[in-house]
Amino acid sequence: MSTPTPASLLAAARDGDRAALARVLSLVERGGDGAREIGARLGEPRDPAATSRAYTVGITGAPGAGKSTLTSALLTVIRRQDQRVAVLAVDPSSPFTGGALLGDRVRMGQHDLDDGVFIRSMATRGHLGGLAVATPEAVRVLGAAGFDWVLVETVGVGQVEVEVAGQADTTVVVVNPGWGDAVQAAKAGLMEIADVFVVNKADRPGAAEARRDLERLLDMSASGDWRPPVLAAVAESDEGVAEVWAGVGRHRQHLETSGELGERRRRRAAEEITRLVGVRLMEQARAATIGERAATLAAEVAAGRLDPWSAADQLLPGP
Amino acid sequence: MSTPTPASLLAAARDGDRAALARVLSLVERGGDGAREIGARLGEPRDPAATSRAYTVGITGAPGAGKSTLTSALLTVIRRQDQRVAVLAVDPSSPFTGGALLGDRVRMGQHDLDDGVFIRSMATRGHLGGLAVATPEAVRVLGAAGFDWVLVETVGVGQVEVEVAGQADTTVVVVNPGWGDAVQAAKAGLMEIADVFVVNKADRPGAAEARRDLERLLDMSASGDWRPPVLAAVAESDEGVAEVWAGVGRHRQHLETSGELGERRRRRAAEEITRLVGVRLMEQARAATIGERAATLAAEVAAGRLDPWSAADQLLPGP
Repeated sequence: MSTPTPASLLAAARDGDRAALARVLSLVERGGDGAREIGARLGEPRDPAATSRAYTVGITGAPGAGKSTLTSALLTVIRRQDQRVAVLAVDPSSPFTGGALLGDRVRMGQHDLDDGVFIRSMATRGHLGGLAVATPEAVRVLGAAGFDWVLVETVGVGQVEVEVAGQADTTVVVVNPGWGDAVQAAKAGLMEIADVFVVNKADRPGAAEARRDLERLLDMSASGDWRPPVLAAVAESDEGVAEVWAGVGRHRQHLETSGELGERRRRRAAEEITRLVGVRLMEQARAATIGERAATLAAEVAAGRLDPWSAADQLLPGP
Repeated sequence: MSTPTPASLLAAARDGDRAALARVLSLVERGGDGAREIGARLGEPRDPAATSRAYTVGITGAPGAGKSTLTSALLTVIRRQDQRVAVLAVDPSSPFTGGALLGDRVRMGQHDLDDGVFIRSMATRGHLGGLAVATPEAVRVLGAAGFDWVLVETVGVGQVEVEVAGQADTTVVVVNPGWGDAVQAAKAGLMEIADVFVVNKADRPGAAEARRDLERLLDMSASGDWRPPVLAAVAESDEGVAEVWAGVGRHRQHLETSGELGERRRRRAAEEITRLVGVRLMEQARAATIGERAATLAAEVAAGRLDPWSAADQLLPGP
């Protein structure tokens, strides 16, 4: 039996073959030629509808905020509306922090036998560009495979996570009561990307204060004609989860009626292209820094006789 | 009064002015022209000794492993030997996860009035290259300011942290008993960068098992003539901390007598140059993706009529 090509795997994934879909996503995650071919196939003009079908919802927040629990609860709501949904759990950190995540994944196990649900972790495979490059590609694959929604859940709120979460059509930021201060959300750059705020574990003390703090921050920072709602939920017991989903729906409707959805997607595409140009150039950088001349410069820098910026300039062709 | 130049700040920092040192490090953290000028000054041939004086010790491990506590305890040991030591606490994540860190910082407060200790957090300022570029530069600054040791402590074990910790002369990996499995350390790529393992909180159940697991992994993976020792400690009560420092000292001696220290530093310098070449090229990428043609391509990608890799290729000059 011959190894299936990326193209044949993609075709099978489009026809509903889940094993093929998983393999396509592995190719995308791995980067390189396979990912490249998948990308080119997805971009073929004959089938533009299939590649832009999925609506993406980013779910981000501090570790332990209950993102996986909320995601799992949202799956139930979405399936009740008979829509197909995929989850990408994006983890740029190591398996070190995976304890809680694995626990939460068990909860998602209730959806295991449901053909309308597809759950997938995306980890870093160390290739250039990493998850910021692989995630939008994976979203397109899932759209092509017929999923109506893709929930992109991030593990924490590091650089990569905020970047990935910000690529969604609608971004949900999950915070907790007594989780310090809503000001922290602002500091982490989440006010800029939040379209919906959820104060999860709202049965704990301090929920009202957390909501009030967020509203105040929004008073100071909100602009444009969408003001992110601040919703309370207890995802563990499904409380408020339907309201969260309704909030996402309102934001989607706002984007669609205002024409902002197309604008947002164009902006994201532009960012994605910039990132890929960066990857290409980084490949050139690696190539430029191999060889004897580079080794000599490195020795000079290590000895403190040359600064690394000057060395970099000497290896690069003039602008 | 005129604003001091980067050069004058660096000169003052070299003469022991701590406020000037803090400002120089802020410039380095911020990147751009100021950082560039500092780098060039440090690389001036007239004073190579000062720029390579500090010996760097990376301290990494999962959040909550007790890295800050260990770092603080090590400061006491180092100061007892009358050596000057700086700590760079590198945090690529957001203030979200800062709770424990802040708590641990308080412990470090005991060193506040000690002129031979300098503690500094390094956060991401969003410039190209980020902490991976700023940290080695900051280490050079601290070396120039006369510190014998620079402890580089990372907050977690994400991509950036592992990369930064791996840039040290000696890298200490901190794990805990019952912290899942030493296999997780292997998965996170820590076996490759560890020179010394510390099983911290070794008064808890499972410490012996954690040490045994690490030894087994080393049996499988260790190569070369240095086998990382696996040490037990209870940093909270200073237990085993002197032994950890002795382990670092043995590794340093091994590197120095074998000539590997120079080799390691040259390799690191080469990586640093590659990174800076990458930053330069990324600046070119940004420039290449501004303009009407880029906007048109982004719209095509957003509509699903073109794949982003092809768009990137069209914006780049041929190889």
